[in-house]
Amino acid sequence: MTKSNPGNFFEDFAPGQVIAHATPRTLSEADAVLNIALTGSRYALFSADSFAQNCGLPGAPIDPLLVFHTVFGKTVPDISLNAVANLGYAEGRFLTPVYPGDTLNAVSEVLGVKANSNGKTGIVTVRTTGFNQEELPVLTYVRWAMVNKRDANAPTTDSPPQTPAPVVKPPELMLPPALDFSTYDFALAGSVHTFSDYEIGEKIDHVDGITVEEAEHQLATRLYQNTAKVHFDALAQKESRFGKRLIYGGVAISLARALAFNGLANAQLMLAINGGRHVNPLFAGDTVYAWSEVLDKDDLGEAGALRLRLVALKNRSAADFPYKTEAGEYDPAVVLDFDYWCAIPKR
Amino acid sequence: MTKSNPGNFFEDFAPGQVIAHATPRTLSEADAVLNIALTGSRYALFSADSFAQNCGLPGAPIDPLLVFHTVFGKTVPDISLNAVANLGYAEGRFLTPVYPGDTLNAVSEVLGVKANSNGKTGIVTVRTTGFNQEELPVLTYVRWAMVNKRDANAPTTDSPPQTPAPVVKPPELMLPPALDFSTYDFALAGSVHTFSDYEIGEKIDHVDGITVEEAEHQLATRLYQNTAKVHFDALAQKESRFGKRLIYGGVAISLARALAFNGLANAQLMLAINGGRHVNPLFAGDTVYAWSEVLDKDDLGEAGALRLRLVALKNRSAADFPYKTEAGEYDPAVVLDFDYWCAIPKR
Amino acid sequence: MTKSNPGNFFEDFAPGQVIAHATPRTLSEADAVLNIALTGSRYALFSADSFAQNCGLPGAPIDPLLVFHTVFGKTVPDISLNAVANLGYAEGRFLTPVYPGDTLNAVSEVLGVKANSNGKTGIVTVRTTGFNQEELPVLTYVRWAMVNKRDANAPTTDSPPQTPAPVVKPPELMLPPALDFSTYDFALAGSVHTFSDYEIGEKIDHVDGITVEEAEHQLATRLYQNTAKVHFDALAQKESRFGKRLIYGGVAISLARALAFNGLANAQLMLAINGGRHVNPLFAGDTVYAWSEVLDKDDLGEAGALRLRLVALKNRSAADFPYKTEAGEYDPAVVLDFDYWCAIPKR
Repeated sequence: MTKSNPGNFFEDFAPGQVIAHATPRTLSEADAVLNIALTGSRYALFSADSFAQNCGLPGAPIDPLLVFHTVFGKTVPDISLNAVANLGYAEGRFLTPVYPGDTLNAVSEVLGVKANSNGKTGIVTVRTTGFNQEELPVLTYVRWAMVNKRDANAPTTDSPPQTPAPVVKPPELMLPPALDFSTYDFALAGSVHTFSDYEIGEKIDHVDGITVEEAEHQLATRLYQNTAKVHFDALAQKESRFGKRLIYGGVAISLARALAFNGLANAQLMLAINGGRHVNPLFAGDTVYAWSEVLDKDDLGEAGALRLRLVALKNRSAADFPYKTEAGEYDPAVVLDFDYWCAIPKR
Repeated sequence: MTKSNPGNFFEDFAPGQVIAHATPRTLSEADAVLNIALTGSRYALFSADSFAQNCGLPGAPIDPLLVFHTVFGKTVPDISLNAVANLGYAEGRFLTPVYPGDTLNAVSEVLGVKANSNGKTGIVTVRTTGFNQEELPVLTYVRWAMVNKRDANAPTTDSPPQTPAPVVKPPELMLPPALDFSTYDFALAGSVHTFSDYEIGEKIDHVDGITVEEAEHQLATRLYQNTAKVHFDALAQKESRFGKRLIYGGVAISLARALAFNGLANAQLMLAINGGRHVNPLFAGDTVYAWSEVLDKDDLGEAGALRLRLVALKNRSAADFPYKTEAGEYDPAVVLDFDYWCAIPKR
Repeated sequence: MTKSNPGNFFEDFAPGQVIAHATPRTLSEADAVLNIALTGSRYALFSADSFAQNCGLPGAPIDPLLVFHTVFGKTVPDISLNAVANLGYAEGRFLTPVYPGDTLNAVSEVLGVKANSNGKTGIVTVRTTGFNQEELPVLTYVRWAMVNKRDANAPTTDSPPQTPAPVVKPPELMLPPALDFSTYDFALAGSVHTFSDYEIGEKIDHVDGITVEEAEHQLATRLYQNTAKVHFDALAQKESRFGKRLIYGGVAISLARALAFNGLANAQLMLAINGGRHVNPLFAGDTVYAWSEVLDKDDLGEAGALRLRLVALKNRSAADFPYKTEAGEYDPAVVLDFDYWCAIPKR
């Protein structure tokens, strides 16, 4: 029997199954710095201890998206090594801030399985939770992926259909208990715009573009210890549908969020991921642009919350907000459709 | 009104104007390590805590050029987002050593404005100062850039001409108060050559060459949170004069200084930037070589100071010290002409 | 006289000569994190403080291969600046674990010299030892390289032939004194396979492949402060035999060891390097695969030890374990033949 991990196939998953993922990871200041070098993020809260301390926190927390990628990366060897497609996420909530020195591990529970009619694949839905070294949950989210069957003839039983909530409800959003925006420094944050300045339906072109190199997405994806073959093995990818390495979707999310600083500099702290879809593949050499739309607003007391749609594009300016055709199909330039909640000072 | 930052145009600047730049940044050991990985720097003082402690310092300080790039990066969104060219710097002085854990922010004062006769651009001169979390100035320098006008017809008033000092005078050089070279370890530093071994007029070929990749300069420039579009957006740059991404000039400075280890290993601590000009553009795929000339010497008591011209070249060996033609024009291989003071042990 | 380092030539070496190498280096969490980003390593012991603490250690140690590359890098300017080929290593032993904050320096002793009959080169054998800031040896190994003569006519005297031991004997393997695998967490480590599960002669295909980019190997090699020209100067390399930059052999070792996680996840702690040969050159754009063979086993008491052959390949799957032809020649796909001891829990 081989000692290499073949990964789980569709018929290996059953509702209720709990999988503890390997390789706990201590995140450090170095992860935060590499995150800046890899994305160009300029949000002050994750860039300067003094800024974070002025917001009531003990120091600069780890960017929630870096927490997400780290937790997600751990699940790959067990959940999606044999996945054909990562279909989306939902019900993502950041529960406890993560600081340099914290060690994360991840556990997934299988929520549902549904075989496809082609007999070759099926859809697996899991809830993944990341924990810190004190066993406090730091992040939980639902994800579904299309996974290959090992044996097309293996019998399978569909579980009752799962319908993730379309949006995390404001009462479920967790602000860090110590968060205090009363002396927030708007000049250092880089924008004067507060909660009340944003209107539902408002769209923002983030203007700047960023071209991605193979070395960059590989460094990022390895930083997350996500070793999915499609991102790294150019030789094997020559035989694939695209003929080349595919950029991990999380890289697109982080690049788009970094670009979103230009227009959303105060919307620093991601609180929830309502949904996310990787609509088209992103490749090295592509240039990423992004725009945002304010979908909703909610007053959380200490801070406001904006519900934002973040759309990442490849090789096309965001100036005219490309999204979907009248027929409801995504513009071919759209690579990411990401829906999240973010805290923002109220002034 | 857009919430994206359009940047300041020439007519937005006025002498005496003070601009507090966004995104304070806590520099950490990770920045020091990434600086090594990005440049190949081997100066012992910035590489080993024990070496720095033996020189009287609490630990390895952050490389002054990394401090410069970090401070410079903060000014970009306010000063040079609409710049056509970064014309030069002068009067740069490193005032307080920066250590891992220090948080830097930056403030600029407009010293002068001068419209160009074409009506489309003008020259803006600013003094930028970087501060640490104790509000101590860590670095101050003057910079001038050619900036686009928003409206060619906007009236402008030139300020009295500014003439930066051609050189920082030795009494203005600040050695770290605790600096003590009395037990300096020349073997660990990598060279036996001290202050007295260098003669004014001496030229040194730094021999080695280093080829720059797109991913490398992008990582470095994002590390400095310098998001000038010309360095990152290959698609937009296709329409530019060069047709491709331009490498941030600071990358050329740091690569050349790292190469200068081979011949100047004891000239570790940069004290001042007398002047710097990016003479020709550097692109990914170019190979950088460098040579130095000793322009002046001064005995600072605890240490000697060398005034050095650092010339970076692209795609041409430094063995014959290419610089200027007889007509006074730069050799087309020269990318950087950089004039600085550096401390060196006297033995 | 030039102040640039011309490096030592064959006739500069004499048996008994001791060389203290330059540039001590404080390794930090950032080095550990960059090591993960550059290699994709997932061994839990070097990834999470909590995992290491559960194994009796004060925190996650620095990956022994990163220690090796750091120590090796320091020797390059003195030993192999004028080397034609790095022929191999042997008798490598990791003596004291290295933790973030430790500062390493390196000293080499020349063991032997042997001129080649062509008069142009000779073989230099050195023993290099890395020390931490407490002057404790952390690593010692023997290395031999073919080095150019400065002057083909210079007379040389061969020393008595050196024959490094073919393998480090188990009693010479040093487990960290505090190491305690009694509560080892196999789920977090990512594999159920323990000492007793591996059989001598067993071969493991590590399945995954990783394509290397120029920016990646340059970043890694600069991180190690190894500035050998062949890895960085594309212009000079155009005139070389290969016409392009050569990837530092240590990069191949670390990539192969990272791939070996898939099948050897519990063989985390490298104890000794019995031998290593870089059989064929690796270039940017190549895809690395790896397989291992269990060569020997030994019970060290607190842990088991596996002696493993790690074979790295380029651009060819490891599924059929390519190694040598019947005539004893290496398969052209083999880039690395590496023989080492590794600790593994006994359960």
